[in-house]
Amino acid sequence: MKIALVIGSTISTIKDEAMHGRKLLIVRDTDTAGKVTGEPYVAVDTVGSGTGDLVLVTDGSSARFTTQTTNAPVDAVIVGVIDSLEMSGKVTYRKE
Amino acid sequence: MKIALVIGSTISTIKDEAMHGRKLLIVRDTDTAGKVTGEPYVAVDTVGSGTGDLVLVTDGSSARFTTQTTNAPVDAVIVGVIDSLEMSGKVTYRKE
Amino acid sequence: MKIALVIGSTISTIKDEAMHGRKLLIVRDTDTAGKVTGEPYVAVDTVGSGTGDLVLVTDGSSARFTTQTTNAPVDAVIVGVIDSLEMSGKVTYRKE
Amino acid sequence: MKIALVIGSTISTIKDEAMHGRKLLIVRDTDTAGKVTGEPYVAVDTVGSGTGDLVLVTDGSSARFTTQTTNAPVDAVIVGVIDSLEMSGKVTYRKE
Amino acid sequence: MKIALVIGSTISTIKDEAMHGRKLLIVRDTDTAGKVTGEPYVAVDTVGSGTGDLVLVTDGSSARFTTQTTNAPVDAVIVGVIDSLEMSGKVTYRKE
Repeated sequence: MKIALVIGSTISTIKDEAMHGRKLLIVRDTDTAGKVTGEPYVAVDTVGSGTGDLVLVTDGSSARFTTQTTNAPVDAVIVGVIDSLEMSGKVTYRKE
Repeated sequence: MKIALVIGSTISTIKDEAMHGRKLLIVRDTDTAGKVTGEPYVAVDTVGSGTGDLVLVTDGSSARFTTQTTNAPVDAVIVGVIDSLEMSGKVTYRKE
Repeated sequence: MKIALVIGSTISTIKDEAMHGRKLLIVRDTDTAGKVTGEPYVAVDTVGSGTGDLVLVTDGSSARFTTQTTNAPVDAVIVGVIDSLEMSGKVTYRKE
Repeated sequence: MKIALVIGSTISTIKDEAMHGRKLLIVRDTDTAGKVTGEPYVAVDTVGSGTGDLVLVTDGSSARFTTQTTNAPVDAVIVGVIDSLEMSGKVTYRKE
Repeated sequence: MKIALVIGSTISTIKDEAMHGRKLLIVRDTDTAGKVTGEPYVAVDTVGSGTGDLVLVTDGSSARFTTQTTNAPVDAVIVGVIDSLEMSGKVTYRKE
């Protein structure tokens, strides 16, 4: 899973019913301190996250394996909100 | 999903029946302002999009999970037209 | 799908029966003018393509979804020969 | 599979039951001497590994194919602890 | 599929029974002359290959589709030994 920061959202016109009502957030991968390092992409929110949250993103086919995205044509899904990251006993990120 | 700009189309000779009649568009990934950043690739249109549209592209196995691409040998599909992108309360892109 | 140029072929000793008799071509991704930009990789031909053809390559799990590659351990397959590419009303590539 | 070093762990709030109780470790890909070369990402531990271990990481859909991650929305899983790496008869890494 | 050179092997402690007894080789992607260009990763051998062999590697979910890796948590498998590579009628690699 990727460590990613939620930076925004998108309103899109989507025909596929499996995606109706899903919140589409814009995220960027980060390092272990929560600093963005990657390009923006769109992930389906399944945990009630929002802008400023550091989250866990599952991509590829496994994005269809949350209870909210079963068989949906999605390739990235937010599966968790990160509370803390710890490296060698030192906390590098903690949710405020 | 990727944020991508439709930049063109391709006519190809394809044997596989699951892909017959599908519109194949050329897209490039963009940043959150709609400026292209990635290399061109081909995605199946399922939403009636065209050149100049900013779209959401699902890639990998999930590209087979729209109602129009079930079990087709496709690895990228346009699942939505982006109406707007918003970062921290500021609109960075709005469809004209 | 990728836009790719067929640049060669490989003879390999393969045990898996699902791949027997399949033509394995070497391809490189290209830009929209057919100029190679990517590294070489091997794709299974399913459309009778050959060196010099610009083709559409499907990769990942969807490579198993042509009628000729069902359940085969392949991750890239040529699904079409590109006849033309058009950007904003201008033809950037046409098959000779 | 990737050769990766476990560098830390994350505490996250995850709704999906298939992931409950799973240890989420932060890893970085390495070269054959165990020196980190890649960006950090999160993998589910299935072998009791911890910080400082060099491990084998399976990613993509196959991450769902361990007995502990069946049908879970995960895209990276630690499937083994590396005991040694050998190049041309020379040991380049041995677990202490 | 990737063109890759077998450069070594790994001994790992793996719990998953589907991977028991499988030879895990370290490979690096190469160009069409067999010169390494990519980073090392681990692939399951299914064809009796060894150090110095140029091989075909299938990655992603299709790595589970050889008869020896069915439903195993593996994401890269060696499916063939390359005998020769030919570009535009010229042999660029031949197995010794």
